[in-house]
Amino acid sequence: MRRALFAGTFNPFTIGHADIVKRGLEIFDEVVIAIGENQDKPSADISERVEAIRTIYKDDARVRVAVYHSLTVDFAREIDACALLRGVRSMTDFEYERQLADANRALSGIETVALFTRPELSHVSSSLVRDLKKHGADVFAFVAH
Amino acid sequence: MRRALFAGTFNPFTIGHADIVKRGLEIFDEVVIAIGENQDKPSADISERVEAIRTIYKDDARVRVAVYHSLTVDFAREIDACALLRGVRSMTDFEYERQLADANRALSGIETVALFTRPELSHVSSSLVRDLKKHGADVFAFVAH
Amino acid sequence: MRRALFAGTFNPFTIGHADIVKRGLEIFDEVVIAIGENQDKPSADISERVEAIRTIYKDDARVRVAVYHSLTVDFAREIDACALLRGVRSMTDFEYERQLADANRALSGIETVALFTRPELSHVSSSLVRDLKKHGADVFAFVAH
Amino acid sequence: MRRALFAGTFNPFTIGHADIVKRGLEIFDEVVIAIGENQDKPSADISERVEAIRTIYKDDARVRVAVYHSLTVDFAREIDACALLRGVRSMTDFEYERQLADANRALSGIETVALFTRPELSHVSSSLVRDLKKHGADVFAFVAH
Amino acid sequence: MRRALFAGTFNPFTIGHADIVKRGLEIFDEVVIAIGENQDKPSADISERVEAIRTIYKDDARVRVAVYHSLTVDFAREIDACALLRGVRSMTDFEYERQLADANRALSGIETVALFTRPELSHVSSSLVRDLKKHGADVFAFVAH
Amino acid sequence: MRRALFAGTFNPFTIGHADIVKRGLEIFDEVVIAIGENQDKPSADISERVEAIRTIYKDDARVRVAVYHSLTVDFAREIDACALLRGVRSMTDFEYERQLADANRALSGIETVALFTRPELSHVSSSLVRDLKKHGADVFAFVAH
Repeated sequence: MRRALFAGTFNPFTIGHADIVKRGLEIFDEVVIAIGENQDKPSADISERVEAIRTIYKDDARVRVAVYHSLTVDFAREIDACALLRGVRSMTDFEYERQLADANRALSGIETVALFTRPELSHVSSSLVRDLKKHGADVFAFVAH
Repeated sequence: MRRALFAGTFNPFTIGHADIVKRGLEIFDEVVIAIGENQDKPSADISERVEAIRTIYKDDARVRVAVYHSLTVDFAREIDACALLRGVRSMTDFEYERQLADANRALSGIETVALFTRPELSHVSSSLVRDLKKHGADVFAFVAH
Repeated sequence: MRRALFAGTFNPFTIGHADIVKRGLEIFDEVVIAIGENQDKPSADISERVEAIRTIYKDDARVRVAVYHSLTVDFAREIDACALLRGVRSMTDFEYERQLADANRALSGIETVALFTRPELSHVSSSLVRDLKKHGADVFAFVAH
Repeated sequence: MRRALFAGTFNPFTIGHADIVKRGLEIFDEVVIAIGENQDKPSADISERVEAIRTIYKDDARVRVAVYHSLTVDFAREIDACALLRGVRSMTDFEYERQLADANRALSGIETVALFTRPELSHVSSSLVRDLKKHGADVFAFVAH
Repeated sequence: MRRALFAGTFNPFTIGHADIVKRGLEIFDEVVIAIGENQDKPSADISERVEAIRTIYKDDARVRVAVYHSLTVDFAREIDACALLRGVRSMTDFEYERQLADANRALSGIETVALFTRPELSHVSSSLVRDLKKHGADVFAFVAH
Repeated sequence: MRRALFAGTFNPFTIGHADIVKRGLEIFDEVVIAIGENQDKPSADISERVEAIRTIYKDDARVRVAVYHSLTVDFAREIDACALLRGVRSMTDFEYERQLADANRALSGIETVALFTRPELSHVSSSLVRDLKKHGADVFAFVAH
């Protein structure tokens, strides 16, 4: 049984994130979606975010949703994940993800599996959704349901 | 008559911005320079910035200067612009601009026209000018007049 | 009247190329699609390629198709184009296009207008189509008609 | 049982390739290393290359070595692979791999899994090894054994 | 005698920074490591940082450590440095460093010498170290001693 | 005395190359410009190229011009150079140069010093000059004299 950890802030969980989970399940037996909570600035709506994601996957036993407060690599070991799952949207993402993957490998030996975001979703990001919302735009089409 | 929207914060309006406007006028009949104002944190000096830019173009009827508070694509539709005009200074800019252009096309169908910044101006940015100013350096050569 | 030159080898003319022409016509009044012929190694099928493109645009008076043997900037001047139209698919393309645009501006002062390829078409290239063909794959969906 | 296809020319099979196979086996149950043979220019030494790779993995039942003549995606389907395994050494690689992955997904729906090359191996490539050999340098340390 | 200025915040001074200094000394006769202090938000621990770096180089007369409050190019002139020494870890770094180097050359004519970070150190950054520390991880291996 | 090796094909030696030599002399005491000759396909005009470069620097004792047939790092050791001098024009260049620098450091421990090409020269390359020449354009302004 191979389990992958898909960690992020998911604020909100977009159709891009959902696509990575779906495609991750073609490679791994189980995907754990986990929100890292910064204990210095706890987020009021974190349980809301968790609930929204749980609702999406309530009928899929291969997906679990969790919150964690430690280093990502420590949480991965705790849940016995064999790899970190990441979506790469752009070359700037690529560099960042690569340095993160190198650091995580150096810290704990864990592997990182990168999936290229589908091109038609590469402009969809949580920060775009938040920005649109602030201006009163309809974001239903960008958020996963 | 084809009108382009050149939106930004222009804090300040540099010789790089002025070059994009000049070159945009070889392609479009009219360019509207517009400063997006964030209503959550209104900027004290926004009318100063508008006045500075208006002074530069006071003799060119093809250029207008405006302030807007909506999504950029909504303002573009309001002023009947057929395209967003953007300057691309670097590959990092390119990625950002591409995602923005994809998002704007998805939201409203509007086209984005990218002009490559002249190489000899590619290091000129508003943030460079602000940084130099903070240290008391002379920034006259970088700001449009 | 503003005319743009869209130059390339178009071997073959893909749905990505057709998309750039369509979007270019929202900015320019006329687009001239032109195939540069290398006189050292003339291509047997160049008139076929020209005919295939002409067929696509036979009902659109805003599009013309031509062959040229000079420098691209010289041909642009000859047909009185105000800009070169280019599609940019990736960051590697971006760098190449930028250097080309800088060189062309240095040579003749002509402007280059870059449109970002739609993300869902960014993997479509003439070389991909040729490669698929060589292996007997069906390329109908990638070639413009 | 999840099988991945690791396709390439492997001329020669470097320590960078071997590292991708080793790490791929932490994610997949089986990895098929396959050399695509171009039927237009058949390569005299292809069976030598296959033998060299088979020798490396002769004691590992999870790795098989093959030659194929079709499109990579067709061969993947033939051997019932759920994903293409790729190593990404650099941002230029990333762009190329992304377009290839998009094209392969469009052609057959297959997934591509990218692993970032370990940084200390990112300068190792088959072309570097061939170049060093041509100049009489010792390449033992770069070739997998 | 050729002196280089290696300016940064060095919060903390990592093994990556130390590697650039060591390699810089193969090219320059002297390297001045200097921390730029932002007078608007003075940093309580700046003298601690300076002391930590001085301790590392206490036996190497070719390295000096300083604090400065002016523009980097002005400080370079003040200490009679012929070049700014920089480490480039990634393509995103490269773009930033290039614009900075162009700006600094435009301001004062000074040269910038970029050394590519050793690949096995390219994931080591001050912000990684700070992030690990915040989560209680052991960072001894990443900090220079 | 610090000597740098500036190796290339220099076909032709452009104003961009000349700028790197000039700036390299602000860092190194001596620069050796060297053309690597591929013994498999010897180039008829290599002595012409050497003569053209020698003429440019005939009055500067700090610059020497040579031809070599070995690995670049072996030639560097032979002439007692402490570093390889390189110009980096773009991010694509950067990646290539970085892999080359890593390979050369792994092979012989030699350092590589990268200077960012001046932006106003970043479109000037030997291949551009050759391409312009083929079309009968005047290339005087791009070639070093």
